[in-house]
Amino acid sequence: MTDHDHCSTTPDHLCMPTDARKRARHRLSIARGHLESIVKMLDDKDVYCVDVLRQIRAVQGALSGASDVVLRGHLEAHVATAAERGDAAEMVDELMEALKYR
Amino acid sequence: MTDHDHCSTTPDHLCMPTDARKRARHRLSIARGHLESIVKMLDDKDVYCVDVLRQIRAVQGALSGASDVVLRGHLEAHVATAAERGDAAEMVDELMEALKYR
Amino acid sequence: MTDHDHCSTTPDHLCMPTDARKRARHRLSIARGHLESIVKMLDDKDVYCVDVLRQIRAVQGALSGASDVVLRGHLEAHVATAAERGDAAEMVDELMEALKYR
Amino acid sequence: MTDHDHCSTTPDHLCMPTDARKRARHRLSIARGHLESIVKMLDDKDVYCVDVLRQIRAVQGALSGASDVVLRGHLEAHVATAAERGDAAEMVDELMEALKYR
Repeated sequence: MTDHDHCSTTPDHLCMPTDARKRARHRLSIARGHLESIVKMLDDKDVYCVDVLRQIRAVQGALSGASDVVLRGHLEAHVATAAERGDAAEMVDELMEALKYR
Repeated sequence: MTDHDHCSTTPDHLCMPTDARKRARHRLSIARGHLESIVKMLDDKDVYCVDVLRQIRAVQGALSGASDVVLRGHLEAHVATAAERGDAAEMVDELMEALKYR
Repeated sequence: MTDHDHCSTTPDHLCMPTDARKRARHRLSIARGHLESIVKMLDDKDVYCVDVLRQIRAVQGALSGASDVVLRGHLEAHVATAAERGDAAEMVDELMEALKYR
Repeated sequence: MTDHDHCSTTPDHLCMPTDARKRARHRLSIARGHLESIVKMLDDKDVYCVDVLRQIRAVQGALSGASDVVLRGHLEAHVATAAERGDAAEMVDELMEALKYR
């Protein structure tokens, strides 16, 4: 798989697909900038609670979006192929644990 | 209220309580650092999807915590006093809108 | 308040506004019917997982809607008037606890 | 697979694993009883908003638990085997859609 060209995927370790990695990085990078701007907002004594709640909500939405990019890449590259590799039980346990409280 | 000493709260504008503002700023500042470290994780071709999902989840938890600090301050300083000020209907509409999809 | 005409609201107990109570009851009643139909779906050996996931999601959305009706009534009738009654601290603690993991 | 003995799984249709189906049915059946009791609670004019919010929250938790049972069964029986069947892209699209707003 060209996705994994430069990645040291081994029987013990699966690498994130390059495309998902780059897109998630880009989204998280934007969310970080947004979060930075909320921290600055909070230096202002006049800031209003509900404006802060809305901005935090927006960043949470952006993180969910980034999380979906990673999840989709994981399902395609690693979960859908688990029966072929023979590690379906472990992959599903691990994913269910990571999705908890989602 | 000493909380509002330096804040230009007017009949048209309510300021965030100082204590909630400082605590929320502190928490968001830590979350931003955590998010920064996830962006760096994603530069590594060997990063594993589920590790990234877990880290994003942790930041989402931190944002929820910061959001709760802001919400509590808002309920105490502005919503609980709304009937006294005479703007209960507006305050509740605004808050319900901000809590949507929470 | 006419809302509370027949309710034994006392200094120790606050009653739910009648309108919110009736609307929440109506919505939950519909959600219960929907949930009943999902239980029946699951008697069918041919049922497909994703169809069940979608139906459960729909009921969860209906419960969130009912919860919002109750929350709005509570904010209007009990939280916005808390400073007047002198129990703001308790009301906010109680609400924050109930909103946890929302 | 013995799980599918009596299920008409065909190339066009995948059936829910029997065990997941029975366990999900059991959980949803309990949640329906709980929801029924909340509807009855709301016939009482003296009911308190926060008690209703807590009960709705409990049912939502039960629905999430049932949803996790279905999701785990789906991942094991249908997603982990998708590459073998050759429908990974469709399976992942469908699942991402169903998990939206989760």
